[in-house]
Amino acid sequence: MQRGFLLILSGPSGAGKNTVLDAVLKRCPDVVYSVSATTRPRRPMEVEGRDYFFLTREEFESRIAAGEFLEWAEFCGNYYGTPLTFVHESLARGEVVVMDIDIQGARQVREKMPEAILVFLLPPTMAELEKRLRGRSSDSNAAIERRLETALEELKAGVEYDYVILNDEVERAAAKLEAIITAERCRVGRSEYFQLVKDIVGEQGVMRQDDESAAH
Amino acid sequence: MQRGFLLILSGPSGAGKNTVLDAVLKRCPDVVYSVSATTRPRRPMEVEGRDYFFLTREEFESRIAAGEFLEWAEFCGNYYGTPLTFVHESLARGEVVVMDIDIQGARQVREKMPEAILVFLLPPTMAELEKRLRGRSSDSNAAIERRLETALEELKAGVEYDYVILNDEVERAAAKLEAIITAERCRVGRSEYFQLVKDIVGEQGVMRQDDESAAH
Repeated sequence: MQRGFLLILSGPSGAGKNTVLDAVLKRCPDVVYSVSATTRPRRPMEVEGRDYFFLTREEFESRIAAGEFLEWAEFCGNYYGTPLTFVHESLARGEVVVMDIDIQGARQVREKMPEAILVFLLPPTMAELEKRLRGRSSDSNAAIERRLETALEELKAGVEYDYVILNDEVERAAAKLEAIITAERCRVGRSEYFQLVKDIVGEQGVMRQDDESAAH
Repeated sequence: MQRGFLLILSGPSGAGKNTVLDAVLKRCPDVVYSVSATTRPRRPMEVEGRDYFFLTREEFESRIAAGEFLEWAEFCGNYYGTPLTFVHESLARGEVVVMDIDIQGARQVREKMPEAILVFLLPPTMAELEKRLRGRSSDSNAAIERRLETALEELKAGVEYDYVILNDEVERAAAKLEAIITAERCRVGRSEYFQLVKDIVGEQGVMRQDDESAAH
């Protein structure tokens, strides 16, 4: 069986990571979402265990100490982290694990798993990004200002990624992400290439020379 | 404008390169086929300038001497080569240039253009490959035997490629090739990333701090 791989989607808060991921997850049964743990307050529409595992600072810190995160970071005063167990189990099943993590987290993952694929999602414009952040209404003005400042910094870091997708239209962006997953599945380095060739050649390949007189 | 790139499709004779390429070319207007030159005899269904430029050995050798090929090789007693001019003009227009060339040719291109994408197409089985080659009826028995022996060698070389596609079903294989093209268009290294970010940030990004009082 072909091994799975990690795909990290990063991008400024408000770039549309969730919407794009949702569209891809709906269409691709072999792609699974790695639910992050966080200490930030739950937003009204968010569901425990689907959007995040919501932890207290004490719980989060004891899990850091126990080495239970693939990566973790503190962002705007809250912890965010990726539980290891789920990732390992999914990859072993041949699934593609997608994660929505920030640039610091992506760097940590790349260090531990250099074969991970890093995709950066760009908002169409900064004005649109600000509109989306204000539309959420869950964040204070000060928090939105901080997010916008962070966004400008993050846009520069996108150049460290493997792929970049401009989220000008959700369906188009989702199709591109899906294409990246399909393409990465075709990578020679990810296929068990010689097993594949062995399957193709099979008995025929070895016996063909001897069978020639019969075939003609 | 985003630069184009070269995509090389290789695979044993009979793997279905033409059929898969035709399907992709029909769907992707920004993908163009680089017509090779050859000295091998024209097959009944083939059209000059669409399938190949058919040249005499003398014509071919004088073009080699003039440096007019991106790559060329001798295969089964015939010359095959890629005219340079078309490739350069298409890449400059931002197009993806696909080429159907053998492993020797792919190695030459990779040396001259390391950013070229190499895709290897696998036949579903050797038995199916032989059936397809015999179905063509244009080749002699001896030529078919040579092609089958070459195929076994070529399968091993596929591991040098970037991507591998199993051609078990034409539409599925074509969709994978299309996904590879879409994904490669999203490569950070191929996008003019900082220009993209500049477009997003625009005037707003620079002026936002000054405009804050007006916006609130």
